[in-house]
Amino acid sequence: MLILKTIEEFTKARSNLLKGDSLGFVPTMGYLHDGHIELIKRARQENKYVVTSIFVNPTQFGQDEDLDKYPRDFEKDRNILEKYDCDLLFFPSTKEMYPSSKPGETFVVPGRTAEGLEGALRPGHFRGVATVVTKLLNIVNPTTTYLGQKDGQQVAVIKKLVEDLNFTTNITVVPTVREEDGLAFSSRNSYLSKGNRKKAPVLYSSLLIASSEYKNGDHSAQHLKEMIREQLKMDSEITIDYISIAESNSLQEVEKASPGCMISAAIWLGNTRLIDNIVLE
Amino acid sequence: MLILKTIEEFTKARSNLLKGDSLGFVPTMGYLHDGHIELIKRARQENKYVVTSIFVNPTQFGQDEDLDKYPRDFEKDRNILEKYDCDLLFFPSTKEMYPSSKPGETFVVPGRTAEGLEGALRPGHFRGVATVVTKLLNIVNPTTTYLGQKDGQQVAVIKKLVEDLNFTTNITVVPTVREEDGLAFSSRNSYLSKGNRKKAPVLYSSLLIASSEYKNGDHSAQHLKEMIREQLKMDSEITIDYISIAESNSLQEVEKASPGCMISAAIWLGNTRLIDNIVLE
Repeated sequence: MLILKTIEEFTKARSNLLKGDSLGFVPTMGYLHDGHIELIKRARQENKYVVTSIFVNPTQFGQDEDLDKYPRDFEKDRNILEKYDCDLLFFPSTKEMYPSSKPGETFVVPGRTAEGLEGALRPGHFRGVATVVTKLLNIVNPTTTYLGQKDGQQVAVIKKLVEDLNFTTNITVVPTVREEDGLAFSSRNSYLSKGNRKKAPVLYSSLLIASSEYKNGDHSAQHLKEMIREQLKMDSEITIDYISIAESNSLQEVEKASPGCMISAAIWLGNTRLIDNIVLE
Repeated sequence: MLILKTIEEFTKARSNLLKGDSLGFVPTMGYLHDGHIELIKRARQENKYVVTSIFVNPTQFGQDEDLDKYPRDFEKDRNILEKYDCDLLFFPSTKEMYPSSKPGETFVVPGRTAEGLEGALRPGHFRGVATVVTKLLNIVNPTTTYLGQKDGQQVAVIKKLVEDLNFTTNITVVPTVREEDGLAFSSRNSYLSKGNRKKAPVLYSSLLIASSEYKNGDHSAQHLKEMIREQLKMDSEITIDYISIAESNSLQEVEKASPGCMISAAIWLGNTRLIDNIVLE
């Protein structure tokens, strides 16, 4: 695997590799887990070349968020990428991605999909995501970009970005990978205390209860959300950020759940924020 | 020359043509004049393939601006493009470029370069420019994009966009092409009455007077701008929108003119708005 740290090196290496061959791209913030590995495996199966990026993007973190303590382990990540046969790793510095220290740079503003849920609670987050993804897509120029369903709103925002700005990449969404007890893999799970780690699966199980209630014929979004709230409230250490049932592309809230709707929730468990979702079939 | 009206057709035609060959791109709003022709000739000289786009982009027009009456003449444009050996013409409908009639789309916000001059007087103009240029660059994927110096702030905004968002295209800026009496070619010159057409060269001549005063050693921006104002004020039918001396990449106003500064002005002559500029050497 080649490791490229500058945009110039990367684009040169990329154009040497590729003449009409397919390239699968897995953008990450590193600290790779089984969810990332699933994306890489899928990209490996479907493309001649696989590119992964590791970049903890400062512009998508709020001022009071966890940019500084976000977990990093480059050697472990490199070993994982070698093991799963990634061809190119793009591993730029912050200065390489944002060379100007002055304000007044060009940025990308996502549309209405970014307004609710995470976007409402993390102002500027999706502007940072949309801008860095635009930059990465321009640098990598992938045939297909692989995204995890776990970050459901991010998937909707990037799909809309690609559509609205006419990027040529395909988007493939890979189902959420979970621990045996149901907790979705996330780099931020490493923040959980031992006690809270044991409690964390309640987030997914509360969504599962709502989704099986839906399958049993109860389509009232208000009722399904109430069921989730009741489950989560049973633990007094949990603070609920939101519970949502929305159409999974537009992310507009619905009154009646239907196939293609995403049931999602965000909670705080101690100092750790967890998100998860289920898309109804 | 192939004429492609949809993004899908265009990108297919483009990838059929190109395997590592250079492609020069001339984005236009049509009603082609000698300024455009200069861009096309330059692209023709320097690239294996030449792509022109004709698209009167609604998102860069203000509500009270001239979108509806903007001049159009497709048959004349097509003949010019055939004559100068353009390979592909991208000629999309508004619906092809902006398929959703709903608000809430992704857009691109240019940085500080867009704040002053045209940006101050035409709110939203450069957001529209930055968004449509992002879309066109993604669709066309050119080796080099050719822009006219006449729209000096547009050049600065697009250069910064390409840099900040890591587009891979080169930007080549082509000097302003002028009529014999000095008036810069512009599609909007067709709005001028016969009488005002005769008066219009005063815009360029006032900039020339300031630039020769600069060459004579007077570097005070305030003084040079005053000279331009005096020239323009001699005609009572002229309304001045702005007179500026700014560093030509950042577009920050300067107190002392120096090489690389752009002297620019915008005026109204009757119902026609004219802009022009000179970059100091």
